[in-house]
Amino acid sequence: MTSMVSSTTDLTGQMIIAGSMVRGTGDEVRGFDPTAGSELEPTYRYGDPSHVDAACAAAAEAFDGYRSVPAERRAAFLESIAENIEAIRDDLVARAVSETGLPEARLTGEVGRTTGQLRMFAGVLREGSFNGARIDPALPDREPLPRPDIRQRAIALGPVAVFGASNFPLAFSVAGGDTASALAAGCPVVVKAHDAHPGTSELVGRAVSDAVRAAGLPAGTFSLLYGSGPELGIALVTDPRIKAVGFTGSRAAGTALVAAAAARPEPIPVYAEMSSINPVFLLAEALANRAADIGRAFVGSLTMGSGQFCTNPGLVIAVDSPDLDTFIAAARDELVQATPAAMLTPTIAENYRSGVDALVAHADLIARGAATDAPVACPAALFSTDARSFLSSRELQAEVFGASSLIVRCTDVAEMRAVAAGIEGQLTVTVHADDADIDDARQLLPTLELKAGRILFNGWPTGVEVGHAMVHGGPYPATSDSRTTSVGSRAIERFLRPVCYQDVPGALLPSAIADGNPDKIWRRVDGNLTQD
Amino acid sequence: MTSMVSSTTDLTGQMIIAGSMVRGTGDEVRGFDPTAGSELEPTYRYGDPSHVDAACAAAAEAFDGYRSVPAERRAAFLESIAENIEAIRDDLVARAVSETGLPEARLTGEVGRTTGQLRMFAGVLREGSFNGARIDPALPDREPLPRPDIRQRAIALGPVAVFGASNFPLAFSVAGGDTASALAAGCPVVVKAHDAHPGTSELVGRAVSDAVRAAGLPAGTFSLLYGSGPELGIALVTDPRIKAVGFTGSRAAGTALVAAAAARPEPIPVYAEMSSINPVFLLAEALANRAADIGRAFVGSLTMGSGQFCTNPGLVIAVDSPDLDTFIAAARDELVQATPAAMLTPTIAENYRSGVDALVAHADLIARGAATDAPVACPAALFSTDARSFLSSRELQAEVFGASSLIVRCTDVAEMRAVAAGIEGQLTVTVHADDADIDDARQLLPTLELKAGRILFNGWPTGVEVGHAMVHGGPYPATSDSRTTSVGSRAIERFLRPVCYQDVPGALLPSAIADGNPDKIWRRVDGNLTQD
Repeated sequence: MTSMVSSTTDLTGQMIIAGSMVRGTGDEVRGFDPTAGSELEPTYRYGDPSHVDAACAAAAEAFDGYRSVPAERRAAFLESIAENIEAIRDDLVARAVSETGLPEARLTGEVGRTTGQLRMFAGVLREGSFNGARIDPALPDREPLPRPDIRQRAIALGPVAVFGASNFPLAFSVAGGDTASALAAGCPVVVKAHDAHPGTSELVGRAVSDAVRAAGLPAGTFSLLYGSGPELGIALVTDPRIKAVGFTGSRAAGTALVAAAAARPEPIPVYAEMSSINPVFLLAEALANRAADIGRAFVGSLTMGSGQFCTNPGLVIAVDSPDLDTFIAAARDELVQATPAAMLTPTIAENYRSGVDALVAHADLIARGAATDAPVACPAALFSTDARSFLSSRELQAEVFGASSLIVRCTDVAEMRAVAAGIEGQLTVTVHADDADIDDARQLLPTLELKAGRILFNGWPTGVEVGHAMVHGGPYPATSDSRTTSVGSRAIERFLRPVCYQDVPGALLPSAIADGNPDKIWRRVDGNLTQD
Repeated sequence: MTSMVSSTTDLTGQMIIAGSMVRGTGDEVRGFDPTAGSELEPTYRYGDPSHVDAACAAAAEAFDGYRSVPAERRAAFLESIAENIEAIRDDLVARAVSETGLPEARLTGEVGRTTGQLRMFAGVLREGSFNGARIDPALPDREPLPRPDIRQRAIALGPVAVFGASNFPLAFSVAGGDTASALAAGCPVVVKAHDAHPGTSELVGRAVSDAVRAAGLPAGTFSLLYGSGPELGIALVTDPRIKAVGFTGSRAAGTALVAAAAARPEPIPVYAEMSSINPVFLLAEALANRAADIGRAFVGSLTMGSGQFCTNPGLVIAVDSPDLDTFIAAARDELVQATPAAMLTPTIAENYRSGVDALVAHADLIARGAATDAPVACPAALFSTDARSFLSSRELQAEVFGASSLIVRCTDVAEMRAVAAGIEGQLTVTVHADDADIDDARQLLPTLELKAGRILFNGWPTGVEVGHAMVHGGPYPATSDSRTTSVGSRAIERFLRPVCYQDVPGALLPSAIADGNPDKIWRRVDGNLTQD
């Protein structure tokens, strides 16, 4: 470990381990500008097992100190991360544009989402319900046996490994939702940067690390490593000091992490957000009333960000009809005009191309987007098939990450329900329905509830609100743990567990469950919610 | 499937699949009276894969109907199970006494705990917070983009497999905590009866099945199978229609179920409560003030129910001192006088004997309880060792299920903390501390929080209150999922997951998140808890 983190935004090409800049020893990795088709300086190098060990040792050492920091101080720390990110916004957006090919406006918005998430969790900490405080007061006169004094609160699980996502270089990367919620919970975080944006990762990592130092928190509260998923990533997940994992990425990588975590001597939870084709059900009256509008809006959602969203609408289900043909015609006209933008990385572009090629063999091609000279741009694609083919084909149900979608023509509403019943777990399902469709929608809804974490009507699944009621999650394989959400205030719960305190002397009780409610938080006393 | 469930308490020796009595086809199993050393009629037979298939198919078919039953009706159903159990209380207790060798008073109390749990979950359903209702109202004028209407509630995971426990033939068996919380959540349940009490299981199973029929619920809401863990148990856990598992038992069996569930094409959560030695830390002033009292009370907790509790105090940690010797002398005197009672089964007795024999090779024997003629009774055992030996020995840290405990002599308080840091995850840790011990206790507490689900002071871990603040859980290997509790009102959360409803028409919204709060429940609206 060579030097302290500087406060400039000149990139160093180094990792950050517990506040120190450390040069990797392994393979070289550089940012890649997918628009220009050229590599970016500086050169980063992968970490080795000694770096994983150092980061995890520091995180474990930091844990007791960090988790015992009062909620207000942890809230201020999250806010200072947000401020540090805002202080480098222009440099950060410029670097992220270079590394991802995403538009400046999108990335400026993503900075806002990232800092907004950090501030939301600061609010969660101040509100205090995250403590899960419960008190069952002693009943010394109860017969046949007295009841002891029993209290409950939530504590942090321990150091958390976070994997940066390619498609949200800010909001689901180094200081994104997983990091923010884990830090809020009181967990030190070790991030594995995504190779797709190493410079963006360093800039944000330094913003976090500077905030750790300025707040006087243990240095091991945050580290940032570079490395390959199968090597450094697995080493991180299997390190015995890591107690939970946050991941957004492919199904193959996610299931590998889940398997590695399950095979540990002490298995740990993995929150992997992996795969979703986000079905859209078009009901008859909605199509009759506004087929062309829905078709155009559908393509807008499909091609947004080159389709590189977890919630991209990759499947459309409707009864075959002239109205569906109107929808398809409008979608086709919109799609062939869509300007193809660069994809995030050459690998993602290549996977998209082979995914589309595979669909060509199994479904009918309706339209391709315009071709382009951009080196890693991929034209959108729209296919159709019938319900029976869809239900019997694994290929047609696989996620194609990018702006490709498949329309499933059904013979009737009953077959639409059969398609709903036949799909795997999803992050979202969407229904377009007008008043006369309500009965059909009502019959569909119980199946949709079992298939997705979020059900939306008359909108599009891209665009995930960060709030209290959001669920960004869903049954396997959308995620590895359907009981949680990775977006929104409830994400903090992923990194907490309850502890019960029975007849613990008042002098030793944490403030969340102390007599007199010094934190003025909501608590469940004898089963009843109260702020008293 | 031959006949409907009768309402008499004559045992039929049959399984229950979706309301029908079904004779097994496999190995025979009979109840065994461990006090008399004799087998009991009738003969049960293990189910085969076709029975697993039938029960799971019925559960899957029942799921949508059962989960959509209003909370009030589900609450009344749970209460009617409790009433049905009370109606057969005398026969049930008599049979359970025969099958387990546990005292009548204990089993009568366990009936009360079982019916109390069912009624507690009825209360949880009526109170309504289990819905996890959250509403972020639409903000149509928000800039730059309007916010949609976003609502969240929890829904049932799906059919649940429950494994009856040997040591709580009622409270953690057929209609025990796992079944009650899963049914409360809206999940159909398929129980695998424990071989240690087949007749008790049939009686309770019929009480549940009768309640299903009387309430007009789908027949597949409940089934009861007999079979071996490695065969029928694994078949049940790997059936694709099962979506979660509740288990209380040995570490070997629990880890096998966890591994089987993780290896499914769709992994599912397993809530396995497996292994705990429940350390007791004796601090200096408490020992100085009341060493002999603590010693006698310790043996009372240790030998209760022949030590067959998950929370049995199997480990005592203290600084070597004359006061510790006083504690040991009092414990020894109490232990040699303790009347050895029968253990639950010959297998459990044999495992206890070999566990104690293994300890003899690694620790110093302080005392054995009185021998007895009872065929499967096992005398209590008390050992001692030093901290260094303990920390370096896997054998000394292994759970011996039964009334055996090990005293770890430490050189100072720092070494007590080292022992605390060195132990595996536990259900409970206990501290005996008086006023002058508070500083030592404060230094110990952060480590104890990371090691256990429940921390108790100046009491004994046996005796688990069923309430709102209880945590019966803890880090691996105490359980397979430290984020939950298997006892108390929060146990329902294990079988729920959140679903988000975005811009869903009011006519389709479930009542928990409908406008106007028709259920009058606590909801989080725009982040704030309210009953409005």
